[in-house]
Amino acid sequence: MESIKDLVITLGKNARNSAKTLRYATTKQKNKALNNIAKQIDKNRTTILKANQQDLDHSKNNGLEEALLDRLMLDNARLDDIIESLKQIESMPDPIGEISDLKFRPSGIQVGKMRVALGVIGIIYESRPNVTIDASALCLKSGNSAILRGGSEAIRSNLALYDCVKQGLIDVGLDKNCVQLVATTNRTVVNELVKSSSYVDAIIPRGGKGLVAAISKNAQVPVIKHLHGICHTYIDKDADTQKAIDVAFNGKTRRYGVCNATETLLVHALAVERIMPELIAKFIAKGVELRGCEQTQKLSEQILVATDKDWDTEYLDAILSIRIVNSITDAIEHIEKHGSGHTESIVSENYSATRCFMREVESSSVMVNASTAFADGFEYGLGAEIGISTDKFHVRGPVGLEGLTSQKFIVLGDGHTRK
Amino acid sequence: MESIKDLVITLGKNARNSAKTLRYATTKQKNKALNNIAKQIDKNRTTILKANQQDLDHSKNNGLEEALLDRLMLDNARLDDIIESLKQIESMPDPIGEISDLKFRPSGIQVGKMRVALGVIGIIYESRPNVTIDASALCLKSGNSAILRGGSEAIRSNLALYDCVKQGLIDVGLDKNCVQLVATTNRTVVNELVKSSSYVDAIIPRGGKGLVAAISKNAQVPVIKHLHGICHTYIDKDADTQKAIDVAFNGKTRRYGVCNATETLLVHALAVERIMPELIAKFIAKGVELRGCEQTQKLSEQILVATDKDWDTEYLDAILSIRIVNSITDAIEHIEKHGSGHTESIVSENYSATRCFMREVESSSVMVNASTAFADGFEYGLGAEIGISTDKFHVRGPVGLEGLTSQKFIVLGDGHTRK
Repeated sequence: MESIKDLVITLGKNARNSAKTLRYATTKQKNKALNNIAKQIDKNRTTILKANQQDLDHSKNNGLEEALLDRLMLDNARLDDIIESLKQIESMPDPIGEISDLKFRPSGIQVGKMRVALGVIGIIYESRPNVTIDASALCLKSGNSAILRGGSEAIRSNLALYDCVKQGLIDVGLDKNCVQLVATTNRTVVNELVKSSSYVDAIIPRGGKGLVAAISKNAQVPVIKHLHGICHTYIDKDADTQKAIDVAFNGKTRRYGVCNATETLLVHALAVERIMPELIAKFIAKGVELRGCEQTQKLSEQILVATDKDWDTEYLDAILSIRIVNSITDAIEHIEKHGSGHTESIVSENYSATRCFMREVESSSVMVNASTAFADGFEYGLGAEIGISTDKFHVRGPVGLEGLTSQKFIVLGDGHTRK
Repeated sequence: MESIKDLVITLGKNARNSAKTLRYATTKQKNKALNNIAKQIDKNRTTILKANQQDLDHSKNNGLEEALLDRLMLDNARLDDIIESLKQIESMPDPIGEISDLKFRPSGIQVGKMRVALGVIGIIYESRPNVTIDASALCLKSGNSAILRGGSEAIRSNLALYDCVKQGLIDVGLDKNCVQLVATTNRTVVNELVKSSSYVDAIIPRGGKGLVAAISKNAQVPVIKHLHGICHTYIDKDADTQKAIDVAFNGKTRRYGVCNATETLLVHALAVERIMPELIAKFIAKGVELRGCEQTQKLSEQILVATDKDWDTEYLDAILSIRIVNSITDAIEHIEKHGSGHTESIVSENYSATRCFMREVESSSVMVNASTAFADGFEYGLGAEIGISTDKFHVRGPVGLEGLTSQKFIVLGDGHTRK
């Protein structure tokens, strides 16, 4: 126990020191490091895939379920994606040092804001090894020192990838501690890390609801939380028929296991007859299990009963719950009660309805006539994302480079004194 | 104990409900309410001052120290200031609903950000009754529901002021629970409040280091912290003599008891001979006690010894510690070790030195050739401030209306689906 505490203190001190050196790092140097890391990964494909195979074998023997094995798995195509993502982060503008809103004040001083790194960011994640690289790259580009703690099932893959990161940093003369990977799989590390407010400026958990809740509960460091995505599509009475069918169908079926998938469809009673028969047929043809409220069930014999539990469930599967509502107010109330603050979309041609929905729905992304599947850092133009924040504080929605920074005030004078 | 828990749950539920109604509140309605509150205060001066006199009498009998009595005291001039501050907040633009950066993406969707309220904000403060009004006004204008918990010594004054707030809200048809004042002085309320993450979105403590530290320790809700202000002025080797004297003298002597006062003066060794004799004489003539490092002491017999403790002390008094350093790097290192992340100023005509100082000093305000006394919401053009954040997360420096809001993504499509 004591040795874990010491370990975390060492990690923390290394991180603080490296964060200082990052303040001097030039954009060119950071980009070069990202480029180097990509090259290292390309060069060491065999080693990385071998380590990953060992993780996979080990996890299979331990009975890890198929979906998790798939997340853990690396192959050449996935390494290509990782390399591509590094190149994209390299090509993004450097957020650090950007000065904005510099304005003269009546006193004669000029006041503006400068974008700066948060400092040290701890990222706690589960089985996906690509997070090791994404998180390293995003933190590096945003001038933050990173402490990475991946899942124990991916430890060999993560260590192999981390070797590439380290080499990439060293080659451009950056402190290798700008990114540190926790090599031990002891769980106490996480508990200590989230309490280390003198060494860590923010924690980003990337994983299931359980992980995020456990971390938030113990954290004495600010947490950028992504709890879960119970996303809604609401078809308004004034929805365009084709748009409603396209947006709802794509929101549910584009991919099932993702947090931006529509889990519940709300339909205004006056739109049902016009839109639902075709939409329901489309879902059934695609093999989506439908669970509806009493009124919805009348529309097809194949619609199962939705219980109260359904409205609070993130299926992450080919299942959709459907509820017919009598007004936009009822739809917004349903979202307020059952949503997770992730993403909601309204389909409507009505000016006032769309305006009301945008203003009143308290989610990190609110959409009009667009599929919830668009809730994503790349689609929003942020480049890679380190997570999607369902918090209200600091940053909401997809978190890219800017979410990993903050702004300080700068004041320029000419010997000015205050009266 | 159980009844306090119930009380906080009731406060929380009332706040959540009123926050919902605030989403529908128009700018006009909010401004009208602020105007009404000002009128109510003007109309009820006698009642407010009588309640304040009772607080003062009670506190005197309890032996409250002079400085705190002064903070607690209200008179007609101070009521004028409170009314003036309400008018200023009324005249500020409404931040809520502001849409920015709305841009088309390659997919055809248009992505932007909309500024929204945080929701419910808890403000915990000590003896100054004006915070009751400032906090109410800033929260109202930024669309947040406020739960106020003032010091027990000011309870009668706060209740009298709160009556004006309530009346002002009711008169424009707003829910009176948009602002709630905790009437009990039981301290358990604070402990419960800072743990109520389902009802409260942010806590702002306004008070001494002890209060802030205690709240941060127990909080399960994000805290906008203002710890303390150990502000530095650094006179560089290339400082202009007159600017150095003006900026350093004003930073220390404009007001002593404020967080933006310069507490430590750092001077480059090569600037000492040119600047310090006149500056030291000025401080001594003004009655400022000087405590210096070994080298500084050689400059005048009236300079006392600065011990290690001095570098970490926020005097809030007519005392200044002085240290002579050999380089800008030494100055930045001193600030890093001893500063509180509040405000630091460099006096220099050297381009590279000023650029380096701005980039590397990690404080919420970094100044060039300007007095630290400028670190203030009004001076920065934010209008009234609810505090000065020395945190790195969410908001840094003076916190005005914008610091009480956050931004959600909005996505506008035309039936767009994601490939």
